[in-house]
Amino acid sequence: MDRLDARNERPDKGAGATRTASRFDVILDSVGRLLRRGAIGNLERMVSKMHPADVAKMLHHLNSAQEKRTVFELIKPEGNKAQVLSEMDQGDIGETLTDVPAADIAMLIRDLPDDDQAYVLTTMPEERSQEILRLMKPEDSAEVKDLLQYEPKTAGAIMTTEYFSLLEDTTAEAAIHRLQGSKDTGNVFYVYVTDSTEKLVGVLSLRQLLQVPPHTRLGTMIKREVISVATDTDQEEVAKLVARYNLLAIPVVDRDNALVGIITVDDVVDIIHDAATEDMLKMSGTKSEEEEDLLHSPVIKSLRLRVPWLLTNLIGSMVSGMILWFFRHTIQEVVALVTFIPVIAAMGGNVGLQSSTLVIRGLATGQIELSDVRKVFLRQVTIGFLISMLCGVVALAAAAIMHINLTLGLVVGIAMVFALVVSTAMATIMPVILKRYGVDPAVAAGPFVTTANDITGIAIYLSLATAVLAHLQ
Amino acid sequence: MDRLDARNERPDKGAGATRTASRFDVILDSVGRLLRRGAIGNLERMVSKMHPADVAKMLHHLNSAQEKRTVFELIKPEGNKAQVLSEMDQGDIGETLTDVPAADIAMLIRDLPDDDQAYVLTTMPEERSQEILRLMKPEDSAEVKDLLQYEPKTAGAIMTTEYFSLLEDTTAEAAIHRLQGSKDTGNVFYVYVTDSTEKLVGVLSLRQLLQVPPHTRLGTMIKREVISVATDTDQEEVAKLVARYNLLAIPVVDRDNALVGIITVDDVVDIIHDAATEDMLKMSGTKSEEEEDLLHSPVIKSLRLRVPWLLTNLIGSMVSGMILWFFRHTIQEVVALVTFIPVIAAMGGNVGLQSSTLVIRGLATGQIELSDVRKVFLRQVTIGFLISMLCGVVALAAAAIMHINLTLGLVVGIAMVFALVVSTAMATIMPVILKRYGVDPAVAAGPFVTTANDITGIAIYLSLATAVLAHLQ
Repeated sequence: MDRLDARNERPDKGAGATRTASRFDVILDSVGRLLRRGAIGNLERMVSKMHPADVAKMLHHLNSAQEKRTVFELIKPEGNKAQVLSEMDQGDIGETLTDVPAADIAMLIRDLPDDDQAYVLTTMPEERSQEILRLMKPEDSAEVKDLLQYEPKTAGAIMTTEYFSLLEDTTAEAAIHRLQGSKDTGNVFYVYVTDSTEKLVGVLSLRQLLQVPPHTRLGTMIKREVISVATDTDQEEVAKLVARYNLLAIPVVDRDNALVGIITVDDVVDIIHDAATEDMLKMSGTKSEEEEDLLHSPVIKSLRLRVPWLLTNLIGSMVSGMILWFFRHTIQEVVALVTFIPVIAAMGGNVGLQSSTLVIRGLATGQIELSDVRKVFLRQVTIGFLISMLCGVVALAAAAIMHINLTLGLVVGIAMVFALVVSTAMATIMPVILKRYGVDPAVAAGPFVTTANDITGIAIYLSLATAVLAHLQ
Repeated sequence: MDRLDARNERPDKGAGATRTASRFDVILDSVGRLLRRGAIGNLERMVSKMHPADVAKMLHHLNSAQEKRTVFELIKPEGNKAQVLSEMDQGDIGETLTDVPAADIAMLIRDLPDDDQAYVLTTMPEERSQEILRLMKPEDSAEVKDLLQYEPKTAGAIMTTEYFSLLEDTTAEAAIHRLQGSKDTGNVFYVYVTDSTEKLVGVLSLRQLLQVPPHTRLGTMIKREVISVATDTDQEEVAKLVARYNLLAIPVVDRDNALVGIITVDDVVDIIHDAATEDMLKMSGTKSEEEEDLLHSPVIKSLRLRVPWLLTNLIGSMVSGMILWFFRHTIQEVVALVTFIPVIAAMGGNVGLQSSTLVIRGLATGQIELSDVRKVFLRQVTIGFLISMLCGVVALAAAAIMHINLTLGLVVGIAMVFALVVSTAMATIMPVILKRYGVDPAVAAGPFVTTANDITGIAIYLSLATAVLAHLQ
């Protein structure tokens, strides 16, 4: 994206470390006050002093779509509106542009890089985005249409086609000259070298270009094995490669190895941010769909995303309940057993959650490969066993002392050890199995593991208690 | 860091999209086989073809410290060893360098950028790192010593002092000339401009430098309001700024606004990765300390980090148990009540976990400001209420049908509504309160909220049941 460079050339009034969250709160407060007072002149001056990224963030925190539209209209000059748009959340863009005529939007996004244009258009209904595309210059809209055809969240969908490439026999001098004359040099971290059929043959850094004699041909100085991705590579895979090899940009090639675009590190930063959020939401059973923003989306959408998992869990916990009901005679005989039902259930869930979080995160960051599984499993189960011994002894002591009943203590302690080892084993292996079958492992931590652990823990505990019932009374 | 550029100039044999996890598994397998066979020659050829980042990753997955040392020694040329070191985890560095004489380490890290040198030294005992510093060239060790003095996880501790700065009256032509002659140009994304007392006065991009007439003075073209951080700014705050403003590097200034270093985007990518992992571990009660790697650290360390929270939770769940014990007469009278104890407890925990995850993540990414709290709270409680109505009706129906007892159904349904609303409210507000008092909100999701929700849920349910006990039988 061009954003990197665009940012850099615009006068920017934010000053350093003082720009913290608390300072942003003050800005939000003032904007709110000015809006209520209708002090449009002051508001306009204030907005004009803000960085587009801050304006976008501020719009996000306003209360109504109407306020968002009012403030958006105050952004001057017109070109800055496009910059702000490219920084806005998709939901905010939708709300802000609802009433803006298609022709105005086409004009507004005219100077944005193609990936940002595509980003803005994906926020709109199909029909409206088609209308805007028809109103754009044909050479601009062609590129954007190409980008819109790729599957969301693939390299093709997030790349920009605005990169800098040259032929092998170009001299360093000519390359620098081309660079100086180009208007799209925002993305130039690397110079990509292609053959006459657009096939990617090598890469070199801007620094190398500056440091060789002027007549050196690019072909003699390029690195020929380029780390690249295909158009259908998943965006998280792209992010991993850029992070692992500390790249500033990664080229995207089609099936014939022809260069079709690049993805820059600033977009990768966003992907990593979003991926982590997504994993955490999934672990808490909030099904995350594309571009979700559950903090501000309509209530009904939030419900739709959160309820399915809760209902699954409701059923799972009823199974636990039915196991208790199944053992009701044991419970009635020795009511002291109820004291440790929440203890066994909670500890199984907690120990399991720790193990599955470690495994899920390890798989996500590449710290665990599938070939490490046996090692990781043995290690987690060993730790689970040691933890279970410790918790078992504490629970044994608590139960024995509280109810002055050593047998009860032994039942609680032994059940704790079994329950925790089983739950650690399940919690460790479940994300790996899901991953192997192509399911996102993050969904495992919540529904499956927690519910399964509740059920097995309670079943182990009460079976054991029933077996020794005569001695318990 | 220089890593960005260093990477770029080394011949690199990894080819594009085929470099996925499964391919890496194959590499790991071969290395293991060659090690067991003692085929050192083959191993050396294989390692020499790999990217330093891949070698570091491969070392991480080897089984013993001995294997790590063997493979590390095979890295040729010597300079590549340093590159691999700078990519390795701190634990792996410790294991690999244990037996290497201090003088050899001083030699080994000689050509690394200062922040990477500091990184390697922090993996060692104080005494040993002091010895290595004494063996380094005084001009090198002075910079590293400075870096080592900053608090860990602050801008000062992660910055590099190798940046490119010039005076205001330098011409564009002279600047380019200086750039071409400099050996430390790996970090040059921006040219920083200082006054004669090293105070940071402005910034310009490499692109601008290339596109103005040769005799233009830097002072006439710089952007004077620079987004910068202080040496004691928290690294996550640094990451937020770099991400929000799409920067490639951010300057670090001291109290007098003198430029002392820069932090580049590749390090920010690592920080974001680590911060997300840390939040997830904290949420699952795995206290995360500096540079933790719980998947591979000694078992005893894992226990130390995981056990405190589990014991807290053990006590919390015993409180739940004691509440059950307190209501034992009610339970004995109407044993059907046990069926819904796990249901109420689990649902309170789950609904709460969803809300607190959203809030914790929102606070971490800046999607929520403290001034939004009232709005977010009302929204979450509204959603919690709607969810509780839904779950309440399902639970009411299940209880009434299963035990053919409408009163029991009503008790379960009403208790569910109260329990879920209370747990949503607590789960939403707790991270905010913790954040306001400077405690990391991620610790809230696990211990406090889950345990508190269990306790209140069970207490509400059984109090209600006891109140209407006469009608329940």
